[in-house]
Amino acid sequence: MSLIVQKYGGSSVANPELIDNVAKRVIEGYKKGNQMIVVVSAMGDTTDKLIDLMGQITDDPDPREVDMLLTTGEQVSIALLTMAIHSYGYPAISLTGSQMKIKTNEKHNQAIITDIDTSRLLKELAQNKIVIVAGFQGVNDNHDFTTLGRGGSDTTTVAVAAAVEADRCEIYSDVDGVYTADPRIVKNASKLDYISYEEMLELANLGANVLHPRAVELANHYGLKLYIASSFNNKLGTIVRGDDKMEGKQNVVGVASDINEIKITVERIPDQPGVAGKLFNSLADAGVNVDMIIQNLQRDNLNDITFTINNDHEKRAVNVLEKIKPELKINNYNIDRDVAKISIVGAGMQSTPGIAARMFSALGRDQINIQMITTSEIKISCLIKKDLADKAVNVLHEEFSLDRVNK
Amino acid sequence: MSLIVQKYGGSSVANPELIDNVAKRVIEGYKKGNQMIVVVSAMGDTTDKLIDLMGQITDDPDPREVDMLLTTGEQVSIALLTMAIHSYGYPAISLTGSQMKIKTNEKHNQAIITDIDTSRLLKELAQNKIVIVAGFQGVNDNHDFTTLGRGGSDTTTVAVAAAVEADRCEIYSDVDGVYTADPRIVKNASKLDYISYEEMLELANLGANVLHPRAVELANHYGLKLYIASSFNNKLGTIVRGDDKMEGKQNVVGVASDINEIKITVERIPDQPGVAGKLFNSLADAGVNVDMIIQNLQRDNLNDITFTINNDHEKRAVNVLEKIKPELKINNYNIDRDVAKISIVGAGMQSTPGIAARMFSALGRDQINIQMITTSEIKISCLIKKDLADKAVNVLHEEFSLDRVNK
Repeated sequence: MSLIVQKYGGSSVANPELIDNVAKRVIEGYKKGNQMIVVVSAMGDTTDKLIDLMGQITDDPDPREVDMLLTTGEQVSIALLTMAIHSYGYPAISLTGSQMKIKTNEKHNQAIITDIDTSRLLKELAQNKIVIVAGFQGVNDNHDFTTLGRGGSDTTTVAVAAAVEADRCEIYSDVDGVYTADPRIVKNASKLDYISYEEMLELANLGANVLHPRAVELANHYGLKLYIASSFNNKLGTIVRGDDKMEGKQNVVGVASDINEIKITVERIPDQPGVAGKLFNSLADAGVNVDMIIQNLQRDNLNDITFTINNDHEKRAVNVLEKIKPELKINNYNIDRDVAKISIVGAGMQSTPGIAARMFSALGRDQINIQMITTSEIKISCLIKKDLADKAVNVLHEEFSLDRVNK
Repeated sequence: MSLIVQKYGGSSVANPELIDNVAKRVIEGYKKGNQMIVVVSAMGDTTDKLIDLMGQITDDPDPREVDMLLTTGEQVSIALLTMAIHSYGYPAISLTGSQMKIKTNEKHNQAIITDIDTSRLLKELAQNKIVIVAGFQGVNDNHDFTTLGRGGSDTTTVAVAAAVEADRCEIYSDVDGVYTADPRIVKNASKLDYISYEEMLELANLGANVLHPRAVELANHYGLKLYIASSFNNKLGTIVRGDDKMEGKQNVVGVASDINEIKITVERIPDQPGVAGKLFNSLADAGVNVDMIIQNLQRDNLNDITFTINNDHEKRAVNVLEKIKPELKINNYNIDRDVAKISIVGAGMQSTPGIAARMFSALGRDQINIQMITTSEIKISCLIKKDLADKAVNVLHEEFSLDRVNK
């Protein structure tokens, strides 16, 4: 008998038939004698519909009330999934984040899990019930409902699995697993059988919508192996696990593009100590996440500083720049929205020289001009023109023979 | 400064514009210096939509999970109403039944309120907040969500008003108040300025959808005056209050019809002691509410027993009859669905002889045949053919000059 925690994303429970399908999958695991805990997201576009309703009322909703509103989404899906399991004659019970006592801090809309009191959960499991848990939500010390922000259900899943020391943690969505590239962009992208936490983290951050980075970090912290697969078929998925388990490390395991970044160049600011610090501190204070940064072209003691941010944060960034313009003697700044970030990821690249050179050469051969570069231990990213993004992903996928990974 | 409890029904908060309208009404009360507690139902047809979704999953849902599902309806509306109030710059906070600690017994789908812990409510009021409360829902000792069944939001409202000893309890819906008859049936029906708990109870039981009988009983128990009005206009509504406050009692204050009853006649059962008891006990055990009863035509020591029930209970009643047929030596029974119950209500009729006679004569004059009669202290009901129901209501409304009540 194993203790299994499963998670089904919104697309896996988008309508009653799909909920029925998930019920059958859960029952299959239960019939094998396993204890089953199932974390569920809100059905399909429920959250979007609630946000739309909210938008008709106010542009500036109170975060506490947003959580009050949004937590209903998962509450609906846990009730329906539980009923579906009952309809096949199996015992099940649904629990909200508040009933599960998924304790969080006070930070509405992006709360952090501080503790899980598993007593109710374990009591229900001991009565041989399948326990259906609302993802994405928790409760603070004031008994107010909180939500965990983007990727919240993944985070709930890993946190619950860690809290009960689950034997297996399975994340189901409409994606078969982790691919070497987005299959919509690269026709012969191949599915990875294994990926390390670090690699997954880089790929998750790059927008491969399989698994949220927070959940990956948490799984890494607890050394919890994750099994990523689709709820729409029975294909083998991808296992996310510690690096030390991997043999014959692949130099590069994936290539990804992010077309949601914009590039801001602050022109000709004085080359004095503390100026860059002031600039990026101000951006951080306004909640703007800066990704790539370069400082270049020193002339007349004036610097150009270029950085990229997510396009969601453009307005905030502009507000900051306008405010600090006089103090930092910023002459001018311009925004380039016509950019994409292309990245290759692989734990093996640390120990393999020349990966970066191969990347730059391959892009150059295909006339793809590189505007900015950043590197980390297991990732190299280049900023290029947006309309070349798909081409670049294909070029790099071929350069590193990613169609033959795991084959 | 008064402490006011208001309730807005589902039709009053059916869409964002209506929610905005309610927000303005609530703020108006708050600006006058009152403390405001506002109980809200689920938006318009939300509950029906959830029930439909559930119907696509199972025919036999677990009552606990039904409550898990349905309680989301009010949770959405309290969040949205609170946001709407915030958008005008006024402080407000939403509380679910569970956060409000509206404690109930374990009976899911038709739970009974056992206690309200007002500490959180009073804390928020003390911080000058408008408190928006989810109607219809509570929480049991196991931290599971419960719902109060039909009329639940009215019941929540009166219970909360009683618990905080409110100065005023106002129930808003899409109906202007309590009428002498359904204005859709009787063109010159007039609105009552006042009605007693007992009269309201009879009318509420008769299906005048203004206020649920449970709420009326509770208000009567606590001597809480209720103010019934529409949220769609500023017309004066109807005050429901204790009988002793009424001067110049009206003989008859209202006439109502109920077309949801069916008549069952059990033919020729032995006239022995205990037979009727056995019959009606069995029906009660099966949860069948019996309304009118007559036992007639004693011949050959055999009795016919005729009774009426709500048509919802037909299947249950038939099951009971089939089961006890042999034991009670029931020869045959038949079901007549072509009936309607017409009732006149008025606290004054206790002290005014001849009201019943006038009712029967008026119906007789218009060729409306009476099949069964029941009377209580403040109500007289007759069973007639269904297609004569509207005619009968109009005949009686005119007979008792109800168009001139309060004028």
